[in-house]
Amino acid sequence: MHDHDVIIIGSGIAGGILGSILARNGADVLILDGAQHPRFAVGESTVPHLLARLNGLSVRYDVPEISHLQDIRTLTKEIGTSHGVKKHFGFQIHSEGAEPDFRQSVQAAIPKTLYRAGHLFRQDTDAYLFQVAVRYGATARQGFRVADVEIDDDGVTVIGQTGERLRGRYLVDAGGFRSVLADKLGLREQPTHVKHHSRSLFTHMIDVKRYDDVVDTPRRYQPPAPWYQGTMHHVFDRGWFWVIPFNNHKDSTNNLISVGLTLDERVYPKPRDKTAEQEFFEFVAKFPAVARQFEGARAAREWVSTDRMQYSSTRSTGARWCLMSHAAGFIDPLWSRGISNTVEVIDALAWRVLEALKTDDFTEERFEYVSKLERGLLDYNDDLTNCSLISFANFRLWDAIFRIWGFSSNYGAMRLTRAELQYDLTKDDQVFRDLEKAENTGFWWPDEPEMKRIWDLMVETCLKAEAGAMGYDEAADILHRELAASDLPPAALGYKDPDNQWINPSVLDLARFLRWSIKNGRPTVHDLASGLLRASLRKGIRRQKVV
Amino acid sequence: MHDHDVIIIGSGIAGGILGSILARNGADVLILDGAQHPRFAVGESTVPHLLARLNGLSVRYDVPEISHLQDIRTLTKEIGTSHGVKKHFGFQIHSEGAEPDFRQSVQAAIPKTLYRAGHLFRQDTDAYLFQVAVRYGATARQGFRVADVEIDDDGVTVIGQTGERLRGRYLVDAGGFRSVLADKLGLREQPTHVKHHSRSLFTHMIDVKRYDDVVDTPRRYQPPAPWYQGTMHHVFDRGWFWVIPFNNHKDSTNNLISVGLTLDERVYPKPRDKTAEQEFFEFVAKFPAVARQFEGARAAREWVSTDRMQYSSTRSTGARWCLMSHAAGFIDPLWSRGISNTVEVIDALAWRVLEALKTDDFTEERFEYVSKLERGLLDYNDDLTNCSLISFANFRLWDAIFRIWGFSSNYGAMRLTRAELQYDLTKDDQVFRDLEKAENTGFWWPDEPEMKRIWDLMVETCLKAEAGAMGYDEAADILHRELAASDLPPAALGYKDPDNQWINPSVLDLARFLRWSIKNGRPTVHDLASGLLRASLRKGIRRQKVV
Repeated sequence: MHDHDVIIIGSGIAGGILGSILARNGADVLILDGAQHPRFAVGESTVPHLLARLNGLSVRYDVPEISHLQDIRTLTKEIGTSHGVKKHFGFQIHSEGAEPDFRQSVQAAIPKTLYRAGHLFRQDTDAYLFQVAVRYGATARQGFRVADVEIDDDGVTVIGQTGERLRGRYLVDAGGFRSVLADKLGLREQPTHVKHHSRSLFTHMIDVKRYDDVVDTPRRYQPPAPWYQGTMHHVFDRGWFWVIPFNNHKDSTNNLISVGLTLDERVYPKPRDKTAEQEFFEFVAKFPAVARQFEGARAAREWVSTDRMQYSSTRSTGARWCLMSHAAGFIDPLWSRGISNTVEVIDALAWRVLEALKTDDFTEERFEYVSKLERGLLDYNDDLTNCSLISFANFRLWDAIFRIWGFSSNYGAMRLTRAELQYDLTKDDQVFRDLEKAENTGFWWPDEPEMKRIWDLMVETCLKAEAGAMGYDEAADILHRELAASDLPPAALGYKDPDNQWINPSVLDLARFLRWSIKNGRPTVHDLASGLLRASLRKGIRRQKVV
Repeated sequence: MHDHDVIIIGSGIAGGILGSILARNGADVLILDGAQHPRFAVGESTVPHLLARLNGLSVRYDVPEISHLQDIRTLTKEIGTSHGVKKHFGFQIHSEGAEPDFRQSVQAAIPKTLYRAGHLFRQDTDAYLFQVAVRYGATARQGFRVADVEIDDDGVTVIGQTGERLRGRYLVDAGGFRSVLADKLGLREQPTHVKHHSRSLFTHMIDVKRYDDVVDTPRRYQPPAPWYQGTMHHVFDRGWFWVIPFNNHKDSTNNLISVGLTLDERVYPKPRDKTAEQEFFEFVAKFPAVARQFEGARAAREWVSTDRMQYSSTRSTGARWCLMSHAAGFIDPLWSRGISNTVEVIDALAWRVLEALKTDDFTEERFEYVSKLERGLLDYNDDLTNCSLISFANFRLWDAIFRIWGFSSNYGAMRLTRAELQYDLTKDDQVFRDLEKAENTGFWWPDEPEMKRIWDLMVETCLKAEAGAMGYDEAADILHRELAASDLPPAALGYKDPDNQWINPSVLDLARFLRWSIKNGRPTVHDLASGLLRASLRKGIRRQKVV
């Protein structure tokens, strides 16, 4: 009847991870792709939420290879020397024609104690994960162009451009924007409900200078991690550059730097009379320090220039099918949520598919949560990115958003790490399933109502400022007052000091934060901290016993 | 008048190396390609002649990056951990349905003292060299599809599919088989004069076993280097497999193994009713030991199945243009001459182009030698490969050809190394230009008449055997008698002992060989050895002084 249990369209990072998980857990998986590895992909930056989720996926589904992506040491040792190190997530505000104001920069440094993150050289990570899927038994058909898909009560059929018909029990479209499944079922929301607007220009470059070397930063304003050792954003009104080096790690043999420019296309419409490279360097020339950084830099591949990047779908699951992550929708690379959102969806989808295969029950309701999750991931990312672009005109407003992102992400990553540790101790999948039981599906810290209130206030305030209903300074005042008054932003991590530009907790700060959370935190915060601490200690003790 | 000095079509390994050399030496270079890196390429195996020539190119044109390809340590340190180690070039004869006869295997081990070669993971070496060209100032236009080329007295014009016209002073087509220049000028020889016939099936695989682990080789017949640590050929009548691991080096993170099957298509016509994978595994199943090696192996990319691979051109240079290496012709991957022949041509072409640019003299005669060289490289490779395929039916005949290849290659590599050392001491380019002054252009040891006589006898004898004019045993007798009688095959390296299967000289053997060459060798051999020794010693002494 069926050639395979699950047919996955797309052999990129999403297809590779999901294929590995399903094949590792006994499913007969077919991965289809019109193209082949090796191939270029953008989306190289990682965030703590992603790192925690990679570890979670790895233990939950017993695919240790997935966790190799979360540490520059395992990236280098297991996948190769093409990845960069990421010690921070940092932003510098720029104004046209002016030297940057060192006070208008922020950085979230990544404590070594917690993570040693990398910039993923995607052509290598993606090929690696695809090969992991093949090694676990997935069948791969690359160079297979999908012409049509058919969904019926008994299964799914994928029809190739040669007329070949492949039959499976479940279909995942992880093929990105150009989705046959979305076309077939008319799933694209047109126009999209997404608020944010942007287009992008990007490439990989050679000989981009270290930003640290082109600015003479007074000691007082030097960031905790050198700018070149992390994910650097140069921000200006309604636009931003990214600079993501792969050549910044001691063991790296890669000379490339991922470089991009993202613009609100309503303010900066795509020009028809110049090349992407010309436009990029015109923007570079507006900002003296950025111009110095890119002096002599050369593209190692052709520039890509997109139109508006935002799209969405009315739903993303049904009986026997799922439109996964980038096939369902996309917002913007600003907050590096691409791979993060992808693995969120994989985590929610994989156990459901494995259960459906076992029970042979593929009813729509079983996958409903995944659809809700994808919509939530998209919408919270839309909120954050849209607010950010609005705020780039006013440092204090931007700083407030950066802080709200920062501490909500910290709590969110803690929540995942606690679950991973608890699972490691109990091997009870319910630990992960319980994570889904939260009000604000798709938000990284979904179960704290006070957080949601602050978030909604942030969105409302930014939209008012954008609409001219209040001034930007007033908007910034509202949010900073909220940050001062709320008991959520952890003082020990630096969120309460309005003059502090750097989130860079020491081990002692982390201990203080845990102590404060357990002693004075709200119930959710208290539970997170105490649960995390208990599980860490128990795991630590257990390890010692083994030794 | 001209947009660029030199326009190179093709950003593969040939375009990358030539582009680096020309740009490094002051030429304004444009590299065009319809596709982009990263991309798959086969031709991963290296031979000593190539290793020596890479070093020569590197010093002659002052591009140190080129020499990184010749040593697994620099490959790993400078380009990445995706390359395999190559400690030998080895062959095992197989018969259908039978276990292999351990006496019917030969191996040329690569002495550590001389080289530490690698299996090049081409997607990475090729992208690396392309980026080196860009760093030295070459302009790159990838995704540029060439529609037409025009050559006139004052320059060359490349016309893109969009109608864009690019003007240069010299044109190199390094774009491989599908050559716009060859089409335009009607350069393809049809039918080709090449004698050899073959087609090929290939891919990259995962989980190919080590051949050493699937055969129970008696101690007496164990090769000097384990089979899995080098380039393994499984040979049978009118066909052969290659197995080139990238996963066989201690620092490698690559799980892939390059795998291919090459067949005389007159004996094994390409089937229309089965996939390449089916056909490959049908051949694997014929040979029990090979079948064990491939048990559980899986393709990590789609199989490629070619038609007959041989093609040639009537000429490959003219005023203002060169059809380079694989754009001019191709024989067969058997003797790993692909990159080797490419760099031979680059070495002969580069200084001529640089001189022509300086003097603004692009007359045809200046490039005549390159055309002669390309034809010679093709024809000697044709001789060798054609004789090899004939001989696979008879181990003794095959063994004679292996030996003739072996010692002629040893002398050839010595000749290049001597020149490189002499150049290093004198910085006189005449040292390299003098290498071209030899009778047998395109042969790796072109200036020894006795060598040419043996070579011609080898070709004649094999063709007679193939035509049925003499038996295979008789043919083998003729060549082995010649090997015994000739004063060219060095006894110290193992070529004179008919029972010796392994070319595996120790340092002492190498010293003996040098002593014998200087004392008893023919004039060419004497000069090679004494020149090499003198230059080595002088360089060694000079280094000591610096220290």
